[in-house]
Parts: sequence; C-alpha cells; structure tokens
Amino acid sequence: MDPSAAISELVIANRIVAHLKLVDSFGHVTVRNPENPASFFMARSRAPSLVTSEDILEFNLDSTPVDLRGMRPYAERPIHGCIYRARPDVMAVCHNHAHELLPLAITRTVMRPALHTAACIGHEVPVWDSRDHFGDTNLLVTTNEMGDSLASAVGKGSTALMRGHGSVIAGRSVQEVVFTTYYLRLNAEVLIKAMSTGKEITYLSPGEVDRAGELHAQPMALGRAWEEWCVQAGIAKLS
Amino acid sequence: MDPSAAISELVIANRIVAHLKLVDSFGHVTVRNPENPASFFMARSRAPSLVTSEDILEFNLDSTPVDLRGMRPYAERPIHGCIYRARPDVMAVCHNHAHELLPLAITRTVMRPALHTAACIGHEVPVWDSRDHFGDTNLLVTTNEMGDSLASAVGKGSTALMRGHGSVIAGRSVQEVVFTTYYLRLNAEVLIKAMSTGKEITYLSPGEVDRAGELHAQPMALGRAWEEWCVQAGIAKLS
Amino acid sequence: MDPSAAISELVIANRIVAHLKLVDSFGHVTVRNPENPASFFMARSRAPSLVTSEDILEFNLDSTPVDLRGMRPYAERPIHGCIYRARPDVMAVCHNHAHELLPLAITRTVMRPALHTAACIGHEVPVWDSRDHFGDTNLLVTTNEMGDSLASAVGKGSTALMRGHGSVIAGRSVQEVVFTTYYLRLNAEVLIKAMSTGKEITYLSPGEVDRAGELHAQPMALGRAWEEWCVQAGIAKLS
Amino acid sequence: MDPSAAISELVIANRIVAHLKLVDSFGHVTVRNPENPASFFMARSRAPSLVTSEDILEFNLDSTPVDLRGMRPYAERPIHGCIYRARPDVMAVCHNHAHELLPLAITRTVMRPALHTAACIGHEVPVWDSRDHFGDTNLLVTTNEMGDSLASAVGKGSTALMRGHGSVIAGRSVQEVVFTTYYLRLNAEVLIKAMSTGKEITYLSPGEVDRAGELHAQPMALGRAWEEWCVQAGIAKLS
Repeated sequence: MDPSAAISELVIANRIVAHLKLVDSFGHVTVRNPENPASFFMARSRAPSLVTSEDILEFNLDSTPVDLRGMRPYAERPIHGCIYRARPDVMAVCHNHAHELLPLAITRTVMRPALHTAACIGHEVPVWDSRDHFGDTNLLVTTNEMGDSLASAVGKGSTALMRGHGSVIAGRSVQEVVFTTYYLRLNAEVLIKAMSTGKEITYLSPGEVDRAGELHAQPMALGRAWEEWCVQAGIAKLS
Repeated sequence: MDPSAAISELVIANRIVAHLKLVDSFGHVTVRNPENPASFFMARSRAPSLVTSEDILEFNLDSTPVDLRGMRPYAERPIHGCIYRARPDVMAVCHNHAHELLPLAITRTVMRPALHTAACIGHEVPVWDSRDHFGDTNLLVTTNEMGDSLASAVGKGSTALMRGHGSVIAGRSVQEVVFTTYYLRLNAEVLIKAMSTGKEITYLSPGEVDRAGELHAQPMALGRAWEEWCVQAGIAKLS
Repeated sequence: MDPSAAISELVIANRIVAHLKLVDSFGHVTVRNPENPASFFMARSRAPSLVTSEDILEFNLDSTPVDLRGMRPYAERPIHGCIYRARPDVMAVCHNHAHELLPLAITRTVMRPALHTAACIGHEVPVWDSRDHFGDTNLLVTTNEMGDSLASAVGKGSTALMRGHGSVIAGRSVQEVVFTTYYLRLNAEVLIKAMSTGKEITYLSPGEVDRAGELHAQPMALGRAWEEWCVQAGIAKLS
Repeated sequence: MDPSAAISELVIANRIVAHLKLVDSFGHVTVRNPENPASFFMARSRAPSLVTSEDILEFNLDSTPVDLRGMRPYAERPIHGCIYRARPDVMAVCHNHAHELLPLAITRTVMRPALHTAACIGHEVPVWDSRDHFGDTNLLVTTNEMGDSLASAVGKGSTALMRGHGSVIAGRSVQEVVFTTYYLRLNAEVLIKAMSTGKEITYLSPGEVDRAGELHAQPMALGRAWEEWCVQAGIAKLS
C-alpha cells in the first residue's frame, strides 16, 4: 500500500466511524505511513464525518507535525503517536467517545468479551484513569508523557477504556481497527443491558477468546463488514 | 413456488432483515429448494444488505455446495443444512446476532413469550451453548456435528438462542421466519427492559401461546407485515 | 367537519403514527363519522404506514361493516366500536403495541403521569387483562363482549394498557388521540428508565394532572405538534 | 454581531436542536439582542424544526413583546426573559424536554458531570421544582415570578433540571448553549445506564470540571461540533 492509498482508506474510515456513530464531533482515526513507519497520518481538527483527503496531515511519532499546511491539528495526537512508537506492529489507531461504552468508562469496569464477534477486543479491556498519574487535568491526552502512560495501559493488547472520557483501539490495519471499535461498543452495550437484569453473565472462556479472535482478524470477516459499511456510508454503490 | 420465485423471495428477505437491523454484516437467511427438498438456497459470504440474486448458491443438506460458481460460501452453512435435514417441515431458516437479544444469550436466559405477537417463538426458547459439547471453539457452527447438536436443541420448536453468539429461527416459509425473527427480538427487548425495573413479568399462559401462535402463522398477519417491510426496504413502492 | 375531511385526517394520522413508530405493521387509528355518530371510519386490514383514503371503510358501532367493498377488515374492530358506543364524547380511538410501553403492559404496572406533557393520559392508566374474564385466548379483542370489557376498563378516562398486548387511547379528536398516544409512550419510556435506576419517582400531583391536562388539550399545543408531524411524515412541506 | 446575524444563527440553532432531537415539538432557543441587551429574540409558537427567520420576534426582558406582528408567542417566555435579566453575561438560553434527561428530572436527581465533554454543565445541576413555591400548576413557567424563581435556581451556573418537565441551559453564545444542551443530555443518558448496572460511578473531580469546562468553552471545540451539526441539519453542504 502506498501512502495515497492509505490516506484514501483513512478518509473512508473517518466517514464510516461517523456513519456508525462510533464518534460524534470528536474522536479520530489514524494510520501509520506505510512507507515510513516513523510517521502517521491524521486529519486536521475537524469532525470525522466531514474529513476529506485535503484534511489529512502527517505527524512524527513524537506527534510533532511534518507540515501543517496552515491547518490546526487535533490536540490529542499523542494518543496515536505514543502507541505507534511503543508498538511497531500497530498500523492504525482509533480514539473515540462512543456513547454506549461510556457507562463502563465512568464506572471503571474492566470489560471482558461475551460475544464471539467481540473477541477482537482481547481478554480484558483495561481502564486507564488520567487522574492516577496526572491528577486534575482537562482529561485530554495532549502530552507524550500522558500518551506513553496510556500506551502502557494498552500494553500488548488492542483496547483500553479511558475513565470519564472514552476509549482507544489499536490494530494491524485500518479495517481491523474500525471492526474492533464497532464490536467493542457492541460488547459494552450488551453487557450493560445484561447487567441491568441482574442475571449472571457467561463470558467467553480464554480459549474461546483466542480462537474467535483469530477468526475475526481474517480478511474474510473484516472484508464482509467493510464492504457493507462502505455502501452504508455512501462511499460505494450497491451493485 | 418454483426455485426462481424462492430465490427472489430470499433476496427480498435478505434486504428486509438488514433493513430491520435483525442482522448486521453477519447473519443469514436461507430457503429450502421447493423442487428438491434435499437442497437449500443461501447467499455467498456477503453482508445480507448487499445480497442480490447473483449471489445465491445451492447446497446439499450436508452443506456441501452443488456448484460454487467460483464464490466463497458462508462458513456456518451447517446451521441451516442440519435443521433442514432434521425437520422436513422446515422450509426456511434464519441465523442472526440481533443486538437486542444478545443480553439474554450471554446470560443463558430461557425466554418465554410475554407478547401475543411473539407467541410464534414457541413456549420456551432454549439456549444452546457450543461449549457444553464442543469445548473451547471460535463459536462458529461449521461442522455437521455442531449443526446437528444445535438442530437437536431447536427440537420440534422454531427458535433457539446461542450463548455468546446469537439465535436461530426455523419456519414453514421465508415470510414466517422473518416474522418470527422480528418478534423474537421484540420479546427479548421488552423482557430486558421489564427485568430492569425489578417488577414481576406476566408471561403468556401455555393456552395463550397456542392460540396466539396459530393466529400469527396465518397468511393475513404475515402478509400485512411483509407488505410493509417490502416497502420499507425499498423493494416495493407505496401505491 | 364533513366525512371526507375526517377521512383525510385519518389517513394523515395513520402515516404519522407509523412515522413516529407508535405502531409497527399492526395497530390502528379510527375516527367517528362526524355526520353520523352511529358509525366510524377505519382502514382495511393493512399496515398503517401504507393506508390511503381508498382503504378507509365505514363500520357500525357493533363493528359490522357498512360496506366492505370487497376488502378485508381488521379483526379488532370491537376495540373501537365498543368505546364509541360507551362514550359519546369520544371522536377518535387508537390501538397500538408501541414497543416502549410493552414492558409496563407485561408487568401489569398501573402508570401515572410524571411529565406535564403526559397529563393527557389521565390520573392513572388501568391495565386490562383479557385473561381475567375471557381465560386463554389469542389476546385479540374480536368480540363485542371483549370490546365492552375493555371499554369499561377505560371508563371515563382516555387510556388503558392491555396485558401482553399493547394499549388503547380515546380522545375528542384525531389530533388529540395521536398526541396522547405519543406522550403515553414517552411517559412509559421515561418511567422504565427511572425505575431501572432504583430512585424514587415524583409523579405529577392530582392537581397538576388536572391543570396540565387542560393545557395540552388546547388547540395551540395539539396544533404545534400536528404541524410538525405532518411535515416529518411527508404530508406537508416545510415552508 | 448585528441583530440579523444573531437571528440567522438562532434559526440555525432551532434546526440543529430539532435535528439532534434535543427538542420535540416543544422547547425553544433564544438569543439576546446583540445591539440592545434589554431585549431578546425568540420564535413565535412553533415546533423548532419548522422555525424560519420570518418567525422570529423580539421581547423585552419582562417578556412583553416589542411587536408581535400578528403572531402568537410561546407561553414560556419568562424562562428566557428572567434569566437574561438576572444574568447580564448570558447571551443565549435553551429550554427543552430532551427525553433522555427526563428520568433524572422526575427523580429529582442532582446530576454531576462524569464526562469531560460534559464539564460545561457545571459542578452540579440543580433540580427546580415548580411545586416548591407555586403549588399545583400546569408546570409551565408563564409568569415572571416563576421565571425569577427558576433563574435563581440556575444562579451563577449554566443549567438546571425542572422536575416533571425538562431543563434550562444558559450560555455566553448560541453555539455554547447548544453544545451544553447536547452534553447535558449525554451526561444524563450515560449516568442512567451506569446507575442501572448498580456499579459505583466516578464523577469528574472539581478540579477536572474546572479545567475541562474551560477547554470546551473555547471556539475550537464549539466550532468543530457546530460545523458538523450545520451539515447534519441541512444548513451547510459538505465540501
């Protein structure tokens, strides 16, 4: 994949996460530069539903801009830069405030997958709390020190919730990251409703998480969802 | 009904279950070949909202393909093939992960109908758990051994939940299966909200289930819903 | 208002209750014949979203048809006919299965208004249970005996829930009935969420119900909602 | 900003709050006259989704009309007039019945922000109950005496819930008021779901509320949301 193809896919991903309401006016998706692992692409500060290829900027892994072209960047670049720096295997990152997972983020609930499609979120979703190390802030992750702390909460996994704020998702491709973001939210939504009934939840077993996780990382599963989302978001026509 | 009419109706059913959000990118509806009870029709591996008549393939009841025409089939064909094999009266099957019933699927809640329109789901909806007989898997029903186990959970009924996964619905026609799928979800959604209030639920009595179940299997009720769903899904115009 | 104007308004009401999802493929709105209080207008058996003026039939208060013109009527006509017969002040009736109020209908919860806009539902919404007097049925109100029983549960009020089934709403005009149907559902939805928190609910006081109820029956309030709903349902253009 | 620009922005705000379902047929947004702090602009009595610049009227701070031009005003003008009179810093006000916050309004729940985007609602959202001082009414705030009471509940803050009724939001600009209205609702929605799980909620600390509140009042954050909402509500085209 060359950089321009990566940028095209990133624009599509912005439209899809907006269409699926995984983001509102805030939140962002990024992709590592396929030709230069020391930089990544990210839109200028704009609602994801409105992002076009003209809005995509390039940043170094310390989140300094390569060239702002007169535009204003998102303040929370370090969420992305610090994860790319810590995790050479990660090619794409999403940060979002999906409404349905916020009830878990504000109750510091460590989530586990209970659905086979949600195995991609990993065995446990840690909850990172900016207050633990940084005290009273505006909760935005705007420094590399905060970004490194969040990246270390993600660890070798693919997801973390952020207390009072939202979530972060890392993956091997833009398509995988959008897929994981979608099913992270669904897992949260289903768990919250299950909890409201007071009934005991049967989570996936560790072995099931491993096996189902492998499955949904395959191009077949990702591709089936991606094809539909492109049509739904108005990117592709239904043939 | 000849096979081409069955295929047309199957394509419509795919659009309807997608429009009603009974499926997302995953899930499938199938119909038995009206001219050959030893085979059934099912789309190639594709999101239901995108399925056209070009995508429909034919499978034997052991879920081997009659002719793939170079396409990739769904992996979970045995859900369908095994039910058709075990139940000569069944003419259509739907497998789905409707979001609103997942809280019951992950709490292994045996559901009973509490709404007269949901009498079609039967007296009790069993919960099948792949782990009971097959241990740690990726939860997909991809072998005839698993398919037979699921079919035996459905038994002589029309529905089963699948723990951590979704549900399966069997019926005497495509229209009946879509109707039952819709009201299975509604029953789940209403029960979950009722449970969250802590109040005692009055279910239909066994006699009510029998009487209301007969009613909603009649062409009049099915036809009224089907006519509207065709318009909503863009298949038919409002006259 | 002459009969043709009443029929036009009834068709609009069908579209509005469908657009607002107060009905799905089932449920119906009717209006008394303004020139003959001994009959009422009701669509033939069809999903409300599809009803046109061609579909409107006339029925006597015992729910026998004046002239079916070869069409099939709804089976539950007695819900309407019996209320018109018992209540000369009632000019319009709605029967629906709005999803959000079903959790209260299946828990036999006697609802009271907690919102000023819901004062129109009356001091208390009784729950009518067909099983109390008629034993095991398919729950449909298809005889005048059942219709009279339901009408007597409504009494001098404007609403009743029907256990395992839905609700009925009576009013002095089509616009009032749609308004009450909308806010009956909203009151139910808000109460269910409030109940799920376990917190104590403050209902409107009896005096507040009386005063707010008068207010929302005025043409100004009804008209403001009706104007918007006509635009939303595609009946009128936004000027 | 001249008055005509303020009126244009007010019309856009009406469309946006309707599109975001922050209001239904009831509720209103107003703006102080930028050239005359002793008056404010408000639509005639009409559903917000339908409001055009022709519908905008001017009122004095005692809520008497400057010139009705033959139109009927909203009855609840004193909600706005009394806040403008008490708070010279306030330039815009919104009154709404957003469905998702009504469960807190009817349980008299004093809300605190648990999301960084909701810091704009202030440290605590008081619940004003018309019955405390005015006894049994129709709950509408139609006199200056009631309006002053509500304004004094808002105090130096930006929000208050109204028991059995809805909420009021005050801000330094129309854009800020719409933003605060949106995140007031989101905070309520997330809290209610969190409460339904029975888990302990971690609210923002007072220091976090102050810091995050400053952040989201900045033009950058407001502008990002406003740009997207204008496109969503059909006011602006996506470039």
